[in-house]
Amino acid sequence: MREADICISGGTVLPMDDDRIMRGGAVVVKDDVIVALGDMSAVGREWKAKKTIDAARCIVMPGLINAHTHAAMTCFRGISDDKTLMDWLNNYIFPAEAQNVNPEFVYWGSLLACAEMIRSGTTTFCDMYLFEGETARAASDAGMRCLLGEALFDFPSPNAKTPEEGLNYSRLLLEKWAGHPLVNIAVEPHALYTCSPALLEKAKRLADDYGAPLAVHLLENRGERAELEEKFGMPAVYFLRDLGLLDERFFAFHCVAVDEEEMRIMAERGCKVVYNPESNMKLASGVAPVTAMMERGIVVGLGTDGAASNNDLDMFLEMDTAAKLEKVERLDPTVMSALTVTRMATCEGAKVLGLEEATGSLQPGKKADIIVIDMDKPHLTPLYNEYSHLVYAVKGDDVRTSIINGKIVMEDGKLHTIDEKEVMSRVRTIAEKIKTGLGM
Amino acid sequence: MREADICISGGTVLPMDDDRIMRGGAVVVKDDVIVALGDMSAVGREWKAKKTIDAARCIVMPGLINAHTHAAMTCFRGISDDKTLMDWLNNYIFPAEAQNVNPEFVYWGSLLACAEMIRSGTTTFCDMYLFEGETARAASDAGMRCLLGEALFDFPSPNAKTPEEGLNYSRLLLEKWAGHPLVNIAVEPHALYTCSPALLEKAKRLADDYGAPLAVHLLENRGERAELEEKFGMPAVYFLRDLGLLDERFFAFHCVAVDEEEMRIMAERGCKVVYNPESNMKLASGVAPVTAMMERGIVVGLGTDGAASNNDLDMFLEMDTAAKLEKVERLDPTVMSALTVTRMATCEGAKVLGLEEATGSLQPGKKADIIVIDMDKPHLTPLYNEYSHLVYAVKGDDVRTSIINGKIVMEDGKLHTIDEKEVMSRVRTIAEKIKTGLGM
Repeated sequence: MREADICISGGTVLPMDDDRIMRGGAVVVKDDVIVALGDMSAVGREWKAKKTIDAARCIVMPGLINAHTHAAMTCFRGISDDKTLMDWLNNYIFPAEAQNVNPEFVYWGSLLACAEMIRSGTTTFCDMYLFEGETARAASDAGMRCLLGEALFDFPSPNAKTPEEGLNYSRLLLEKWAGHPLVNIAVEPHALYTCSPALLEKAKRLADDYGAPLAVHLLENRGERAELEEKFGMPAVYFLRDLGLLDERFFAFHCVAVDEEEMRIMAERGCKVVYNPESNMKLASGVAPVTAMMERGIVVGLGTDGAASNNDLDMFLEMDTAAKLEKVERLDPTVMSALTVTRMATCEGAKVLGLEEATGSLQPGKKADIIVIDMDKPHLTPLYNEYSHLVYAVKGDDVRTSIINGKIVMEDGKLHTIDEKEVMSRVRTIAEKIKTGLGM
Repeated sequence: MREADICISGGTVLPMDDDRIMRGGAVVVKDDVIVALGDMSAVGREWKAKKTIDAARCIVMPGLINAHTHAAMTCFRGISDDKTLMDWLNNYIFPAEAQNVNPEFVYWGSLLACAEMIRSGTTTFCDMYLFEGETARAASDAGMRCLLGEALFDFPSPNAKTPEEGLNYSRLLLEKWAGHPLVNIAVEPHALYTCSPALLEKAKRLADDYGAPLAVHLLENRGERAELEEKFGMPAVYFLRDLGLLDERFFAFHCVAVDEEEMRIMAERGCKVVYNPESNMKLASGVAPVTAMMERGIVVGLGTDGAASNNDLDMFLEMDTAAKLEKVERLDPTVMSALTVTRMATCEGAKVLGLEEATGSLQPGKKADIIVIDMDKPHLTPLYNEYSHLVYAVKGDDVRTSIINGKIVMEDGKLHTIDEKEVMSRVRTIAEKIKTGLGM
């Protein structure tokens, strides 16, 4: 018998490296890695674990990957909805950010996001915001895997008076968190309408210096498309290509308004995309051509976007919407199958973030990022097909236990790494100040 | 001091008869009715209740109204997804129905639906299926309010060899359940493509005999629209008008493919509509012109449709989708505000079903159909606006306590009227038979 730390036994295991459904399976964890998975009796003959998690009537699968969010914006959750983008930004988000965003705001807002994400089955997230060192600290305290970067702008932000300060802050993040077991750093110019070509080029050089991913908001709606084409004299993706930004380490959020030739260029260069259907719906941005992108070979992950434009961080609900929106948009119920969407939220998301060696599927040798979903509930009964339930019926609250990097961060619905009462109290205090500042 | 049965005290009360937000409010229940609501201290001076429910950090609001479902179809939840409508119907749903649908199937499937609906905040549902007497019995056992009717067809169903048998069964339901405190009966011809004009006219006469509502699936997609226009030589709603079916007691499910003139006719006649965005997305039916209908004066309620085409019965998720789908469809984030959607799921839904005297808002004299939602959770923190959270962040699992007709049916997440373990076990047994029958 070989010794291990944790054995999750008796559930239906979905490894997600293919479409296998292993009923009565087991997954074995030693230190921070998966050392075995297979039939529970075979595994039980070979491995003896210090702790066994009974997963009867549960699904055991890789933790979900939220490939685009702004974690600290939980502080603005529901501050203003049903408004035009410019009303929302100019009268709520921008003034509230200018008055309130500081390291404390970002730490507590990010930790609240981590609590919500762990509770709803996310084990890895990709973040862009300000004072991202505080988001890194929150993720590290919460025990969550992440890829994050400071939002870079031409204009001053609460964390950087100049674009150079933003780049320097990014460089410090890259240095400080190098080799950390959970926190990974990207370079993240905010968008093409907020960053000059010079800033984009410097960001690219910084990313290249560290072999880091480069991520940007891109073509979120038709208005942005028209504005950028006017500004550059060519479609945005052509411009990025000519600027030398497009390669396998480049990925873009949204891409609602990409055209056929832009998809071809992105596919050819190995660029990746994150789809954010709920945010795109709520802000009336439009519907991204997600099936077309995948058909052309672009790797697509899934993200919730920030809590100010969604307004939750539940990836299971995002999966449900991802499947349904594409069906009604294409008037074809066969597109975006449940398996396709589940892959988007797991193994494909890992590829987008460049973390596919570590996470996104259950394979011996990969890091142990595993969730256990309780299927013994009325709304999940009966059960014909696991992928169908994951996309169309499971909600975040059904996740019972979560393991990240071999460590149990939630067990039977209790968080082990976060004091939720304190976090909620801190964020409520921040929200009171925000309300006062906006005269709400 | 006046005596009462239940006082729900200390929460934020949303009566939904207008847009009031009563923080630190109280709602008092005596027997089956609401006898008072107001500021908790004022109410506390006047009323002494046998039982007090502490609603601190909770929202207290009318129970939700699921205005269109097929409760017993929980037995088919997830049996087949991502298929074309005809593949889904002809190779899964129709053969499975022919082999399996009987009174036992309908009773246990409906009771499972009741468990899921109570858990997720629904207190009233509108149902159409077969052997609806069994759904009535399940709702009565669960303590849920409902309006339901037997699906009528030209062709044989498992419960009626002829259209006349279906009509007779409907008449027996109308007689048997007359005066029941929870169960209300409608006459429900399935659709215009499954019912002859003669059957529709007979259904209308039966409804008129009892002053009952008449409800039908109508114009669920463009294909149905074309088929009916070809069949009748005129648009479907013109045909219904000429047949004499359209009045204040007529309501229709879906109406994805109604045109301008049809909306005008329906508004003029006082007809009502139920919007089912998730089902319409999943089956790729299209997007109903729901804002346009409301602007023209049509009362619109909200429904999940059955668990075979959604695949859950969570009205909070349906509200979220209702708001977001309309925004992206119209490319306007200001349409379908959170308040509008919350009204659709409460007071407007009650009007659709003709139950607005009994339910849909918290008013003294109305029946006590009340839910208490726990807002003390990470994904509901912070809180700027209650309606925003209800639509964009609350999930069914956040409902803590539910009262229907003055009776507590769920308290602190425990169901009082349904043995969930037994119901799940019964439906799993039924599902095993279904799988065997389909060779799954």
